[in-house]
Amino acid sequence: DQPFTLFGGLNVLEDRDLALSVAEQFVKVTEALKIPYVFKASFDKANRSSISSFRGPGLDEGLKILQEIKQTFNVPVITDVHEPYQCQPAAEVADVIQLPAFLSRQTDLVIAMAKTGAVINIKKAQFLAPHEMAHILRKCEEAGNDRLILCERGTSFGYNNLVVDMLGFGIMKQTGYPVIFDVTHALQKPGGRLDSADGRRAQVTDLARAGLSQKIAGLFLETHPDPDNAKCDGPSALPLTQLKPFLEQMKAMDELVKSLPELTTG
Amino acid sequence: DQPFTLFGGLNVLEDRDLALSVAEQFVKVTEALKIPYVFKASFDKANRSSISSFRGPGLDEGLKILQEIKQTFNVPVITDVHEPYQCQPAAEVADVIQLPAFLSRQTDLVIAMAKTGAVINIKKAQFLAPHEMAHILRKCEEAGNDRLILCERGTSFGYNNLVVDMLGFGIMKQTGYPVIFDVTHALQKPGGRLDSADGRRAQVTDLARAGLSQKIAGLFLETHPDPDNAKCDGPSALPLTQLKPFLEQMKAMDELVKSLPELTTG
Amino acid sequence: DQPFTLFGGLNVLEDRDLALSVAEQFVKVTEALKIPYVFKASFDKANRSSISSFRGPGLDEGLKILQEIKQTFNVPVITDVHEPYQCQPAAEVADVIQLPAFLSRQTDLVIAMAKTGAVINIKKAQFLAPHEMAHILRKCEEAGNDRLILCERGTSFGYNNLVVDMLGFGIMKQTGYPVIFDVTHALQKPGGRLDSADGRRAQVTDLARAGLSQKIAGLFLETHPDPDNAKCDGPSALPLTQLKPFLEQMKAMDELVKSLPELTTG
Amino acid sequence: DQPFTLFGGLNVLEDRDLALSVAEQFVKVTEALKIPYVFKASFDKANRSSISSFRGPGLDEGLKILQEIKQTFNVPVITDVHEPYQCQPAAEVADVIQLPAFLSRQTDLVIAMAKTGAVINIKKAQFLAPHEMAHILRKCEEAGNDRLILCERGTSFGYNNLVVDMLGFGIMKQTGYPVIFDVTHALQKPGGRLDSADGRRAQVTDLARAGLSQKIAGLFLETHPDPDNAKCDGPSALPLTQLKPFLEQMKAMDELVKSLPELTTG
Repeated sequence: DQPFTLFGGLNVLEDRDLALSVAEQFVKVTEALKIPYVFKASFDKANRSSISSFRGPGLDEGLKILQEIKQTFNVPVITDVHEPYQCQPAAEVADVIQLPAFLSRQTDLVIAMAKTGAVINIKKAQFLAPHEMAHILRKCEEAGNDRLILCERGTSFGYNNLVVDMLGFGIMKQTGYPVIFDVTHALQKPGGRLDSADGRRAQVTDLARAGLSQKIAGLFLETHPDPDNAKCDGPSALPLTQLKPFLEQMKAMDELVKSLPELTTG
Repeated sequence: DQPFTLFGGLNVLEDRDLALSVAEQFVKVTEALKIPYVFKASFDKANRSSISSFRGPGLDEGLKILQEIKQTFNVPVITDVHEPYQCQPAAEVADVIQLPAFLSRQTDLVIAMAKTGAVINIKKAQFLAPHEMAHILRKCEEAGNDRLILCERGTSFGYNNLVVDMLGFGIMKQTGYPVIFDVTHALQKPGGRLDSADGRRAQVTDLARAGLSQKIAGLFLETHPDPDNAKCDGPSALPLTQLKPFLEQMKAMDELVKSLPELTTG
Repeated sequence: DQPFTLFGGLNVLEDRDLALSVAEQFVKVTEALKIPYVFKASFDKANRSSISSFRGPGLDEGLKILQEIKQTFNVPVITDVHEPYQCQPAAEVADVIQLPAFLSRQTDLVIAMAKTGAVINIKKAQFLAPHEMAHILRKCEEAGNDRLILCERGTSFGYNNLVVDMLGFGIMKQTGYPVIFDVTHALQKPGGRLDSADGRRAQVTDLARAGLSQKIAGLFLETHPDPDNAKCDGPSALPLTQLKPFLEQMKAMDELVKSLPELTTG
Repeated sequence: DQPFTLFGGLNVLEDRDLALSVAEQFVKVTEALKIPYVFKASFDKANRSSISSFRGPGLDEGLKILQEIKQTFNVPVITDVHEPYQCQPAAEVADVIQLPAFLSRQTDLVIAMAKTGAVINIKKAQFLAPHEMAHILRKCEEAGNDRLILCERGTSFGYNNLVVDMLGFGIMKQTGYPVIFDVTHALQKPGGRLDSADGRRAQVTDLARAGLSQKIAGLFLETHPDPDNAKCDGPSALPLTQLKPFLEQMKAMDELVKSLPELTTG
């Protein structure tokens, strides 16, 4: 019942200056609102629709930028990994390393991540039921790591659509591990654009409020100063100008719901 | 942005005494919490799984009980109709008549309901997308009735499961009509028991909070003093003993979210 | 393992002359191919998207046309009913009366149909799992009628789409009742047009072949001489000019699959 | 319109002797039936539910067994790869290398596979629509490889279930590339057992017939001499004793449907 943590930043490290500028604004707003904060950005978008899509600066250059952000602003950082060889170097910089949804069943990657000792954020795959996340948790535990987070990001619903099953939060919380909500990716309409996913960022505040209503440990949020020109997933990104009023709402929601008693209705 | 209205009571009019007793408790709690209230109960369960399932007292006897509740407690009442001939008599007692989800496309029933002049609560069918509700609204308008409510109650998700798409509330609100949330039926697991639906009433508070987070006009709620022995849909019913603390939470949620400004993020 | 029966004709009785002309062509083709045949058309489309959509001639006029077709061509006929009062008169003309998918849970309608003694074609609702059809069969049996047919017509798959689960045929066949396939409605894209369903009639032959591959008792097929100008569901209708080559394929499929032995692989 | 090719064998290379024995039986049956044949087995199950599940002999040992089968029986072989470094060695033995469904969006893996020049079998992910496969085909083409196969294996349908959308075959065939059907994996019930997927192998013949009815280029089939004791996916495997009668049916289906003319119904 502690306040929610924000994992927020950019979808991808488009360039160093943008990343530093976005981090600065997140730090400023979250300090003002007293929201625990972790900077998020990817060094590589490894599963884009097109071979010519922008992928990011890559492992080495990306980790340098993350390191600079970490030192400049004294904040923890989170980034995602895609192959076992990336886990160790990523964990030397990142406080939290993230298991991508599509890869959440890949045993070698899970084990390599677990062995770093870093906190692991496990994205729930679009094709998994909430109760199936227990298998992935157990894989990590058996590899010697129990610093784990579960992250909801929507479930396949017919073709080219995702739906967030609010009842899944409660089921995943029963594992005893913290559960967070990646509202940005849950807004995607996969395959909705000619060469990439479409998104529903006009509804980001509504969907985030619904997620926070479930007494969760954290919110995962991607933003952009100019979503229409973002290099990846702009259609789902919160416009950075709205960060402060957005987080004010989320903090109010979180404080309220965590003050409400649990009722026994089963 | 007015406070939410509660449509609450029993799934079915099991007998007169139970109905009066449940109504009394709802009236007492909603008065104390200053929540606008409409008593709900069905006179006939017309689509149960089994021919031998309990169906209720029928139209004549049911309307008598509803009339008594209305007069005794000075509250409006809502009940559902299933065939055109029931609309006129139902509307003579009920302030709101309800179009069942499975029947929401039946033109003759829609027209007969519209012609009564009563307020109509339109349940969204499990097989309809939120934007498709515009067709049913237009049917009612063309039949001369624009006192309409849209009611979310979950969408088919694979076999024997329902999911509530939180983004649907916003889409339905764009019609300009009030949108309410039937949390009880959204908790059903259709076909989940040998002869009837199963339900997830242990999660009713969580799911109701998520619905209220969407700034909606009302909540639809079925309860029972002894859910395990209810004659219909007990697995989804809120235990009546929890009504007051449940509504206290919902009122707090509703007040908070309606105090939050709309953000422009599109 | 008998040859499949064809339930075919028009979506709706647009007018007498069209109905007679379509029936004539079906009779000619099915006699030539020795396919058992039942003429199908609706007297009323009771659940169209719009109040101003064409609904058909109504019960009295529609039954007259069906009676004329029955006598002129000496074929059995099938038509669908929507309210209990229609069952008796419909069954006086129609050999098979049909329970619409959206109404397949309405107990009073099921009982009224059962009591006529006519054969009942039960459309599987888009929101029901194959194994749940056992409940509806039992309702009919308990009302004294065991002359029953189960009819697959697709299942809700996300918004505005239907999918046919081929494994459902086998599950429904285990009830011991004949199972048929309504390929035309399975081709619908519900809500896909501004005011009505879209359809995928370009793929009708492919989907029908898949259905026939499951050793089923019958095929349900709507056609139109000019699908683009049909008054209902033209986007899913087989162009009547293709009836003969279409049925030649289906007959070949049916004969082949029913000659293949059952394998024990469980 | 050529006869279908069979990609068949074992889920995983449990041990050398079993693999050789299974290959021998496949070769014998497919030669007798004149069905073009490719031996299939995995050297590593990289995404099992549990860390303690059997994974197979690994890359080196697995390729040795595949090489022995290739030489002994003079048949092409197919195997799946999971990380870029595996592609080159796998392609030195395997004629066809397979992109796993969960990994079908991983750009680096796709490129590494493409660069080997081997034929690539692209499994359609459970979360992708048929028309989205065009993106993956283009990725391969842009990496210089157009020897591509698309493989249907079912789509997420609610939780813990897969459904095969028969209309997807036609959509994928429009790409101009050969489309095959992995009937075994389409029979899975993901997460259906405590530690692994359940399956519906009792229905393998039915589902395979439906797939073959779509005029496809090939069938993908996993078998086991003793499915109840298979080390992976036994619940979906065809019992090897049924291979010959099973393939006789499939060949008859394939020959028939490919002899039927295409009809213009759009």
